[in-house]
This record gives sequence, C-alpha cells and structure tokens, in this order.
Amino acid sequence: MEIDILSKYSKYAENAIEEENPTVHMMEKSGKKVTKLNIGDPAKFFPTPKYMIDAYIKALREGKTGYVDPEGILELREAVSKRYKRLYNVDVDPNDSTFITHGVSEALIFLNSMLVNPGDMAVMFKPYYSVCHSGFRLFGGVPIFQEYVHERNWDIDTDELDRKVKAAKKEGSKVKYLMLTNPSNPTGMVLDRKVLQRIVEIAKNNDLVLVSDEIYDEVIFKGATFTSISQIAKGIPHIIFNGASKDLDATGFRIGFVLVPETDPVSMVIKKKVLDFCAIRLCVSTPAQYAVAEGINNTSEHKAEVAMFVKAIEERAELASKLINESKYMHVVPPKGAYYLFPKLDMGKLDLKSDREFVHTLLEEEAVLLTRGSGFGGDGHVRLVALPPKEILESAIDRIDKFCKRHSK
Amino acid sequence: MEIDILSKYSKYAENAIEEENPTVHMMEKSGKKVTKLNIGDPAKFFPTPKYMIDAYIKALREGKTGYVDPEGILELREAVSKRYKRLYNVDVDPNDSTFITHGVSEALIFLNSMLVNPGDMAVMFKPYYSVCHSGFRLFGGVPIFQEYVHERNWDIDTDELDRKVKAAKKEGSKVKYLMLTNPSNPTGMVLDRKVLQRIVEIAKNNDLVLVSDEIYDEVIFKGATFTSISQIAKGIPHIIFNGASKDLDATGFRIGFVLVPETDPVSMVIKKKVLDFCAIRLCVSTPAQYAVAEGINNTSEHKAEVAMFVKAIEERAELASKLINESKYMHVVPPKGAYYLFPKLDMGKLDLKSDREFVHTLLEEEAVLLTRGSGFGGDGHVRLVALPPKEILESAIDRIDKFCKRHSK
Repeated sequence: MEIDILSKYSKYAENAIEEENPTVHMMEKSGKKVTKLNIGDPAKFFPTPKYMIDAYIKALREGKTGYVDPEGILELREAVSKRYKRLYNVDVDPNDSTFITHGVSEALIFLNSMLVNPGDMAVMFKPYYSVCHSGFRLFGGVPIFQEYVHERNWDIDTDELDRKVKAAKKEGSKVKYLMLTNPSNPTGMVLDRKVLQRIVEIAKNNDLVLVSDEIYDEVIFKGATFTSISQIAKGIPHIIFNGASKDLDATGFRIGFVLVPETDPVSMVIKKKVLDFCAIRLCVSTPAQYAVAEGINNTSEHKAEVAMFVKAIEERAELASKLINESKYMHVVPPKGAYYLFPKLDMGKLDLKSDREFVHTLLEEEAVLLTRGSGFGGDGHVRLVALPPKEILESAIDRIDKFCKRHSK
Repeated sequence: MEIDILSKYSKYAENAIEEENPTVHMMEKSGKKVTKLNIGDPAKFFPTPKYMIDAYIKALREGKTGYVDPEGILELREAVSKRYKRLYNVDVDPNDSTFITHGVSEALIFLNSMLVNPGDMAVMFKPYYSVCHSGFRLFGGVPIFQEYVHERNWDIDTDELDRKVKAAKKEGSKVKYLMLTNPSNPTGMVLDRKVLQRIVEIAKNNDLVLVSDEIYDEVIFKGATFTSISQIAKGIPHIIFNGASKDLDATGFRIGFVLVPETDPVSMVIKKKVLDFCAIRLCVSTPAQYAVAEGINNTSEHKAEVAMFVKAIEERAELASKLINESKYMHVVPPKGAYYLFPKLDMGKLDLKSDREFVHTLLEEEAVLLTRGSGFGGDGHVRLVALPPKEILESAIDRIDKFCKRHSK
C-alpha cells in the first residue's frame, strides 16, 4: 500500500505545546521529575472552585447525562450572554447567537471549516496562538502575517497591515477573516483600545470578519485595561471565542463559548452555519455545562476566586519577568495579562541552533519543560507559564540560566 | 460585505437528526409535548449506571479537573485495550494505538482531515450514519456508494462494489478508505461475518484503509453475532471507532475511542497523525475519562446492566417492528442490534412529496419526531429509535399510521 496516505494539509496538525510529551513520559517512567512550564493549566496549581464542582456533581446526581441541544443548554447560553452584558454592556442573544463548544479548539475548527477554501487568506498576528494557525492551515488557508514587535513592546504596524490586506485583495485573494487573541497567548500582551480600534477599522474597510479569542479576559494585571471586541465592533460582523478553561479555572471540563453578537447578513449566515456544525457532533459534555453555568452565574464567589487567582499570577509573572531579565541570555516584555511569558533568547550567544533544540535539550538536561516559540510563529523565543508557585519558577529560571551559561559559545 | 462568505464544502455541515429542533422548541414553548424518536439517546430512558456516576464524582472530588494527555488518560486507554482483548481476543497497544476523542463525531473529523484531499474518494454503504457522510464531504470527499438493499434484507452486492472501486481507481481517483458502521445506524442490521470477510478482502485488494464504527457492538439481539473488524482484518490497516455513549449508556459524557491495532507502515503513519490531531485540541473531558474507565473495567456491574438494557431494547424493537409492518404504509426489516428501525414509507400511497416533508408534517400534526431517511442516504425511509417504553412506541406508531391514513392519496 502507498504510504502517501495522508492529506496535503494534515502536516499542519501540530501543537508545539504537546510535542515533547513522549520524552517527558520516558523521563517520568525512569523516575525523573519534570518541571512543566509548557501548558497553561491553572487547575494544576489552583483547585477548580468548589462551587463549580458541587454544581457538576449535582447535575450528575440529577441524571443530566444524556444528549442536550447541539448549541448547548439554554441555562449556559443565558449565563454567557449575561456575562457579556455585565462585563461589557453588550447584548448577545442567548437563543441564536451563543453556542457552546468543546473548548475554543473546536470553535477554531468550526471557524475554518465554515469559512476557508484552500488558498483563502486570513490575517494572523505573529506570534499567534498555535492552534489558531494549525486550524486555519488544515483547511488550506494562507496567512497574511503581521508582527507584534518584541523590541517595541509588542507594538504593531497597523498601516503596514492595511497595505498587506489591500495588496492581497488586489491580487485576487479572498481574505476571509482577521484573528485576534487578546489578551495574547503567548505574549501576555493586552491590546490597547486605540490599536484595537484601528484593527477594527481595517477589518471593516476590507470586509473581513473579525474573530477575537478573549478567553483570558479576566486575567488582567494592574495598569492594563481589557477591551472586548464586542464593545468597539458594533455593526461589524464579528465572532468571539471564550470559555471556562482560563477565567473559570476548569481546563479539563472542555467547555468553550462562541458568540456572534451582530445581526447583519454576514453574521446571520455565520450563526446558522455554526449551529449546523454543532449539530454534526450532537452536543458538548452535558454535566460540565451545568457546572460552568453555575461558575458564571455565581458572581460573588467567582469575583473572590478570580481576584485571588489573578493577584497570585501577577506576582508570579512579575517575579519571573524580573529573573528572566537578569539573565544575559534572555529578554522578556513583562506580560499585562494571561498566564504566559514569551522571552526572546539571545541565540547568537548559544551553541544551540534553534528554539526547538533549546527546548528539547533543556528538557533532557535540566528536566524543565518549555514550549518553543516557533510553535507560535515566534522563532528564537520560548514560552513559559507563570502559574506555578514562586519557588518553582525561581528554581526553573535559575536552571534555564545555568543551562544557557553551559551552552554559551 | 459579500454574503458568499462560506466555504465551498460547508454546505455539507448538516445533521438531519437535529434539524427539526427549532420547530420542536417552538412547539414546547407553546406547551406541546413532543414524542422524540429522532435521537439515539439511551440515557433518556435508562439512567446512566450508578457505578459510573460514582467514579465521575470521585474524580471531580479528587481534583481531576485539569488538562491530561491529548490521547487520553492511560487508565482509560488501558481499559479500552483490555476490552478489545476480552471481547475479541485482539491486542491493541494502549500506549501508541488507542486514543480518546470527543465522541466518534470528533474521530470522524480527524479521519477526514487526516486522509482526504478534495476529490479523494471513499466507500460508503447506503444508508450510512449521517455524520460519516457529512464529515467526509466537509473535506471535499467524493463517495463511492454501495447500497444495502431493503428489499433483500439489507443484503449487499460486494462484487459490484469491487467493480466500482476498481473503475474509480482506473480513472485515476484516489480511493482512501472504506467506512463501515456495524451494527448499522440507521438500519440496526448486523453484518454477517462472511460478508464482512468479503468486504475486508475488497479493501485489502484495493489498498483501502478499513474504518469500522463499532459503537453498538454490545447491543446485539438474539440470533445475531457481531464480528469486530479487528478479528478478521489482521495484517490490514484498519481504524476502529467506539465509545462510551451507546454500550455504556453515557451519551452526554462525550467520550469516544479510536483504535489502530496494526503495525504496518500505513497504520504507523495513521497513529502518529491521530496523536497530532489530538494535540491540537489539548484533551478530552478529564473527569469523564475516569468515569468511563470504571464503566469498562467494572465488568460484573456492566454485564448485568448491558444484559438488562439489551433485553429491553430488543423487546421494544420487536414490538415496534411488528406494529410498523401491520401498517399499509410502511415496511421495516426488523433490526438485529443497535437502537434503530429504518422503515420504508410507501410514498406512492401518500400525498407527501418526500421523507423530509413526511417528518416535518408529522411533527407539526402529531407531535411525533422522527428523522428523515434521506439524512442517512435512504430516501423514502424514516428512522425511529426503539428506546422508549412500549406504550410510547405503541402510541407513536399508532399516530404515524393514522397520519398516513389521513395523508393517503
């Protein structure tokens, strides 16, 4: 049988976050303890709030274990809709504009299967969240990249972006959407409102659907202000992704949200189609949906939880940024939200050829696991999570620095 | 903005099982009670076994709420592997050949994203399970259909199939895989071992990957014998889908299994790629995986549950078949397994133009919800589930028959 059995685009099915797992499994089997700073999993360090666990158990005990509506239970859709009203004063109809998915990951597959023909383009900001890129490429999408510049505090040249989009359209390309992850994974940057307004304008002028992954919208540090796309894209077709994993600290529940707030013709077509995609996989975890509805609706408990949680992460991120910037081999722009640090390695000083080799060798030699920046379109960077307690971060960064010294040219 | 925003293949995102939901919601809002025979959800009629619920709650209480390995927790992969050993005496490596997915629905998306370029072909038997077809079409696949013939007890012309595949290949088409759903959804037919052997032979001789959805493998009625593809496709690349929804009565947990038992080069390529696809969506419901591991491992409890459950369904399916065949307007081949009946309507006697119109009008007039057969590639049929208690089935079939009388030409 021929071995070229795979599809052309299946090579893009990759996620750098998980790619060192085989090595980690082997190390753990031989008794090594690995410090894992590769995956943004708060539940590993902060227990998922008890009131959500209780609601989950209640749903199970009440026999809520069968199929429910493909778009999600009404209780959860209403909770999500009310949350956007409460936080951003926007109206999103829970009946036809709010959808529950197997995490944002599934929402990304819906998005691309729904909009992308091979050769179609979309705007991606670099560095991007790995799965935004993979999901798009799997359907033959060709990205228009615009870079957040590390040396300029992740600033972005929006005029250049506008020119690129216009040039692509002039050449006959279909540019379908513009994708944001705000707060950013992997950089922890929070987009300034004015920059966001300029991006919205570019999307509007070029007929692009705006897509914004806002899953870290409550993980915002002192001095930064988060703006939801829904606040400034009124009248413009836009799709919002959010979910229970990050703000609600329930990664393993696998519950994501899709919101399509507007009622213009394009938005209406998208809503109908998202529902069709929901229907082909029947539904999302039934008891988990009840737990998440409680997680959103119990605002007083949530407020206390999220305040504690964000404060802890902010302190950890601050310390980690300081320690990283004391090293001669790395530099990081301190994050303003989310869980991540995305330092740039001074590769010229090191005897390692790439961020991929850096990550793999660091794992083998120091049992510290990071994710390579090239997995997010940020070559020469690494991503680490700021979730573990300070002493773990301290020790890990110390080992990374020693590793760099040992590998300096 | 242009309204032709959707991708070419997104029109195939459809699932007939769910398409009458808007009408149902409206009817329920106005106080009508709808008898739903559209979806194969055992949990609506038989509570999900308590020992699984207990294991689920235990996992939640123990804080198993974060991300786990993309391919699933080892405990569940081992349980799935042992189950295939126990039931079919086949060896499937839990480490690199067993994967946990968001139901079989997600497995179908992986399959097609992994193997199908636009224009590639695959063999589908008609009637098919709706999502097997949608999932394939979404990636631009072009089916080679072979019909199970209702008039011949769902028999199939395998020689004709072989000729069709050879002809397609001769014309330069890539025929990637052959898809089975056994026991069949929507017909409840269980494939005879000899027929299955002939199908395996055709796949082998034509270099097709065999794919078998065996999710109803324990729902087998008296006199029928189920054969797993793994028992007779030794040495031939094959992929098996299974899951917790049907045999374990846990539809709302959303846990599916993918097994790739063989070690030939094609199977090895497929295993690696399935893992890549798992990685891009991080993981599947963590606490549900623990519940399902217990569901499989607790063989004594499961044996009792499944025996009770299959006996009840068999009696219901038998009664429903008898009643349907007493009607002048329908004929059904009594099922040998699974949950479904797939009667053929005598459309010539009715003033309704299609099975779609039949289903919609029946819902509106009699508040009985079926699924149109054309959603499974079986025009002029309807699918109904045999899960509800006898008195509900009796009443529903009575109403269907009266409806037919009222609509007879």
